[in-house]
Amino acid sequence: MANVRVIVDGYGGDHAPLAVLQGCAMAISEYPDVDLLITGDTAALQKLATEHQISLERIELMQAAEVVKVEDDYSRVFKEKPDSSMAVGLKALKEGRGDAFVSGGSTGALVVGSSLIVKRIPGIKRAALAPIMPAGDSCFMLMDAGANVTCRPEMFQQFAIMGSSYMSKIMGVANPRVGLVNIGTEENKGGELQLEAYPLLQNTPVNFIGNIEAREIPTGGCDVAIADGFTGNVILKLEEGMGKYLIEHLKGIFYSGIAGKLAAVLVLKPLKKFKKKMDYTEYGGAPLMGIAQPVIKAHGSSNPKAFMNAIRQARNFVQQEVIADIRAGLDKINLEHPAE
Amino acid sequence: MANVRVIVDGYGGDHAPLAVLQGCAMAISEYPDVDLLITGDTAALQKLATEHQISLERIELMQAAEVVKVEDDYSRVFKEKPDSSMAVGLKALKEGRGDAFVSGGSTGALVVGSSLIVKRIPGIKRAALAPIMPAGDSCFMLMDAGANVTCRPEMFQQFAIMGSSYMSKIMGVANPRVGLVNIGTEENKGGELQLEAYPLLQNTPVNFIGNIEAREIPTGGCDVAIADGFTGNVILKLEEGMGKYLIEHLKGIFYSGIAGKLAAVLVLKPLKKFKKKMDYTEYGGAPLMGIAQPVIKAHGSSNPKAFMNAIRQARNFVQQEVIADIRAGLDKINLEHPAE
Repeated sequence: MANVRVIVDGYGGDHAPLAVLQGCAMAISEYPDVDLLITGDTAALQKLATEHQISLERIELMQAAEVVKVEDDYSRVFKEKPDSSMAVGLKALKEGRGDAFVSGGSTGALVVGSSLIVKRIPGIKRAALAPIMPAGDSCFMLMDAGANVTCRPEMFQQFAIMGSSYMSKIMGVANPRVGLVNIGTEENKGGELQLEAYPLLQNTPVNFIGNIEAREIPTGGCDVAIADGFTGNVILKLEEGMGKYLIEHLKGIFYSGIAGKLAAVLVLKPLKKFKKKMDYTEYGGAPLMGIAQPVIKAHGSSNPKAFMNAIRQARNFVQQEVIADIRAGLDKINLEHPAE
Repeated sequence: MANVRVIVDGYGGDHAPLAVLQGCAMAISEYPDVDLLITGDTAALQKLATEHQISLERIELMQAAEVVKVEDDYSRVFKEKPDSSMAVGLKALKEGRGDAFVSGGSTGALVVGSSLIVKRIPGIKRAALAPIMPAGDSCFMLMDAGANVTCRPEMFQQFAIMGSSYMSKIMGVANPRVGLVNIGTEENKGGELQLEAYPLLQNTPVNFIGNIEAREIPTGGCDVAIADGFTGNVILKLEEGMGKYLIEHLKGIFYSGIAGKLAAVLVLKPLKKFKKKMDYTEYGGAPLMGIAQPVIKAHGSSNPKAFMNAIRQARNFVQQEVIADIRAGLDKINLEHPAE
């Protein structure tokens, strides 16, 4: 099998471009079946690589003079900055210069740019931001985590198919359990969106387990959690905030006084394992599900390891042919509403 | 000052009536300024009290033959079971036989029953379920946590006034920071509801700090978090689930092997303190804000201590004259839409 060629936005993320370069070098050394193409100011990238003694073996650089900033209006940024590292990367993906794209840049811009440049899978109404998050002894896919503030019931049906494909193909979950995030488990719970989506999901060729209350999510109540982008974004950020809050509290316990420090030494290994488990960067980034080619959003605050994990995730996305699987799943359902 | 007379639903909650009786006895012994009136099967309650040697000093029992069950349709249960412990308690509150009502029974039924029987404060459009939840070194009020699946912007304005009153009067927070739960901090973020509510909240006589992202909630980003009942319910239950998940994981660390157990002994005190901090029953129940008299929803799984705390909360609600304060706050704003 030929190597997978992952295009990486060299200037996306709070710690770009250095953390990107370092993550790329880690990925190259970890995954012999991956080649990379990094977009950005090639002269600056080359200089940085030399300064930090980062090898550019199996890494190609591609010139992009501009950078998409978080404060840029993402509905206009692709017209205003056609030469940004994100735009150049997306165009390279579209043109077949690589198999997948990874960016730690602005989420909004990446969603808009991917839909504009790479386009959606035929029939897919909207792309969803779909992070993989820790739960129970495993993890789950949350979709949509913020790409679409409001959603229509048919979008949920497509989310279910896409999420099931991903969790089964990439995460190896047999028959992924799809849950509709709701305020009660009964069929008649929730707002209009949930009430309309429920019967649709029942008639979708996925393992729909019904409504799921938010309290069941962290303990592993489902493998794919379906929500509108507003609710999903609240879930994503609340889990993030709770994790941070609890880790801070634990630190306070273990770093105060001799007894605490001694206790910390005694449980250092399981504590570290636990912290790693809670660290969503371990799972890679958030795929943009519904785009015609694999696009991964790495967290804005990604460190080199997080970029490496996102690159691994992009490779798997390609090798496991998730998009072909989604297309087959879409063919199975008779969509009532044709594509936009 | 005369004693506060709190009416308690003797048959509300998973562990009723025993946990209720025990909680009432604890409250009587802790709070000399509280008298109680318990609704339910008086013969059974009396028998239970005798069996468990629970004193009924300063506790009056009031006959109610039926019980509202969680599975009852709460839009009809007050017609179908007019003699339930919840209905009898709410009627007793309305008739001035007590100053406040505490129930661990069905949330939906309590919201409907309170609005029907006790009525709302004049001008208030909808009652909100408003639990006090742990955050940072303190706590915050979440409203609405599920009484209204959908909300209108004017309701958010009223929530802001009610939440501010409560947090200032009962929790002693000076100038409570009111945050609008949203998917970004910028003014132009969110759905229609948030976009319309933002300027309204700016023109409300509260300390509105703008949009708040969910990740800032657990670390104490605001004192009153405003959301529609769907979003609020997701927040409530996700925090619950995350807390449970993390405590379980910690238990796994501390109860496995000799090193873990030794570590647990070393940090037992701060760990217990932390667990207590995370335990929302410590804060009492969730007030139903907007009802014309104080009504507190105790958690369904309340133990005796949680009932005691909910009773203390009801007493404070009365003594601090929160409802008079809310009425004054409402007078200050010129409501564009008159009461329903």
